[in-house]
Amino acid sequence: MNEVLFVVPLWVDLSAVAIGAVQGAMFAARFQDRQLDWLGVAIIGVVVGLGGGLIRDILLGQVPASLQNNWYLPVASGAALLGMLLLRTVTRLGPVIIGLDALTIGMFGAIGSTKALAAGLPVIPAIFVGTVSAVGGSVLRDVMLGVPVALMHVGSLYAVAAAVGTALLVLAVTFGTPLGIAAIVGVSSTAVIRLLAVRFGWTLPEQRQIGGWRIWRRSTRG
Amino acid sequence: MNEVLFVVPLWVDLSAVAIGAVQGAMFAARFQDRQLDWLGVAIIGVVVGLGGGLIRDILLGQVPASLQNNWYLPVASGAALLGMLLLRTVTRLGPVIIGLDALTIGMFGAIGSTKALAAGLPVIPAIFVGTVSAVGGSVLRDVMLGVPVALMHVGSLYAVAAAVGTALLVLAVTFGTPLGIAAIVGVSSTAVIRLLAVRFGWTLPEQRQIGGWRIWRRSTRG
Amino acid sequence: MNEVLFVVPLWVDLSAVAIGAVQGAMFAARFQDRQLDWLGVAIIGVVVGLGGGLIRDILLGQVPASLQNNWYLPVASGAALLGMLLLRTVTRLGPVIIGLDALTIGMFGAIGSTKALAAGLPVIPAIFVGTVSAVGGSVLRDVMLGVPVALMHVGSLYAVAAAVGTALLVLAVTFGTPLGIAAIVGVSSTAVIRLLAVRFGWTLPEQRQIGGWRIWRRSTRG
Repeated sequence: MNEVLFVVPLWVDLSAVAIGAVQGAMFAARFQDRQLDWLGVAIIGVVVGLGGGLIRDILLGQVPASLQNNWYLPVASGAALLGMLLLRTVTRLGPVIIGLDALTIGMFGAIGSTKALAAGLPVIPAIFVGTVSAVGGSVLRDVMLGVPVALMHVGSLYAVAAAVGTALLVLAVTFGTPLGIAAIVGVSSTAVIRLLAVRFGWTLPEQRQIGGWRIWRRSTRG
Repeated sequence: MNEVLFVVPLWVDLSAVAIGAVQGAMFAARFQDRQLDWLGVAIIGVVVGLGGGLIRDILLGQVPASLQNNWYLPVASGAALLGMLLLRTVTRLGPVIIGLDALTIGMFGAIGSTKALAAGLPVIPAIFVGTVSAVGGSVLRDVMLGVPVALMHVGSLYAVAAAVGTALLVLAVTFGTPLGIAAIVGVSSTAVIRLLAVRFGWTLPEQRQIGGWRIWRRSTRG
Repeated sequence: MNEVLFVVPLWVDLSAVAIGAVQGAMFAARFQDRQLDWLGVAIIGVVVGLGGGLIRDILLGQVPASLQNNWYLPVASGAALLGMLLLRTVTRLGPVIIGLDALTIGMFGAIGSTKALAAGLPVIPAIFVGTVSAVGGSVLRDVMLGVPVALMHVGSLYAVAAAVGTALLVLAVTFGTPLGIAAIVGVSSTAVIRLLAVRFGWTLPEQRQIGGWRIWRRSTRG
């Protein structure tokens, strides 16, 4: 089943890592009162750029891909530091970065879910591993910064975009679609959902109970 | 040494996962001001229901059992969402849930410690892995929600109950007790200690130093 | 390549674990208002004393060394509890503890990076794994206590000391230096940098952007 592995060229993977790391640096810039030093910024770059892949490989019982190669760590920490130094330019490129990031989470999801399928996992765990590959870096980032994990709160469908894209990819592969087509469908679905969510401010409903509207309204007024 | 593995039928394990996930949803319901969305509740279900087993298998260097089967993830996230929707009913069932949960941590501890013994770990690490299996989900839950980890603070002997039960099980197995009897002793010890702790409000002493009473009292007054 | 493995006698490794655990207990003592109980203190000891090695072995895809032996867990939790009870004595020994700790992070870095090289990792990931071995315990400690991760904020070059020492060791080994000499160079570099940083209050620069001084000053005044 090794032929379902969606492999991208190293430079594409490293570019995705760099985009994640720059996003991490932009996020960290909001915490200037918390005195992150340069090392902290470099760590955030490593965590956001490589975290999803680290969790993916640990779940699959493998030595992380980013530790089997000398490129990943310098690219992730270097991109974060560059993003920090060029913050104004990077912020001006906001829409470009959001677009590249949408593509990036799609790609991380595709790499993760096909790697899980290749390791022999059933379809639902493979979708889970793909989604975790895409969003794991942002979870680790929030835990390291000591802020509530963003994707659990009413937000912009980050994880849902990743889950839908990887689910489409995994289902397509399961039903015999050639991997190239399945990957294009998966990556573009994730990217499109993510971009539409950002554009139109889509969110999931908040937690609530059936028949609990009155209690609910009282509690939100308090 | 594979014969020491305490295996439960899949439906029992899935029921335990579902109980953990419902508990997770009840816990998350306290955070309505933090705007957890439906995905956040589903994630809490996965984290509380499956987290202990994930940490256990990662420590043992194995692909997590919950990722080798299509059932665990939907059961955990589905149970959490059902718990959220039926919160009032679930809350009314409080004592039943506490009872089932006490049984559940006993069972997770027994599964974890025997799996560790079967993987060749010595007795003390096996007790540790069993305890982590039982309480790991609640630790991950607190980290993901950005609240202090509950089991480290003066509480209701959650981890102690798990540790005592798994220690009895591991010692019994080491001294040649048939696994079935050892497991019953271990699971029921954990459940009974946990229930007595809830009933009588047992706690461990707070941190303090020998001869430091005066300093201590001053610091608590400040 | 197994000959590059820097192995220390078990009692040296256990002493290092105990020093880490005592440091953990001293750190936890600052949180008396948070009601850590005795179990919480024991957990902090395990987390600080064994956390770096746990992360190291998980990244290398191996069952953690501290779980293959009955000594590590009792030593780590026992040292933390002893440190709690004898807090006044331990605090008076402050400079001794700081010195031993500087040696300890150097040693953990050396063990971690040579174990990574022996597992076939390239040099940069090996330096990363060594650094994580040295500082991982303190990261886990902060996450478990729900406080911001110390090493990401303007601090005392804890991680930099570990990274420089492991980098020197790995480079020396790569260029053919006998392991014993390389290890002495690495461990002593880490210890010296760490002690000088504590003595002279060295810090890394905070995060900032090129040309952003005016924005920066405004934001720090706000």
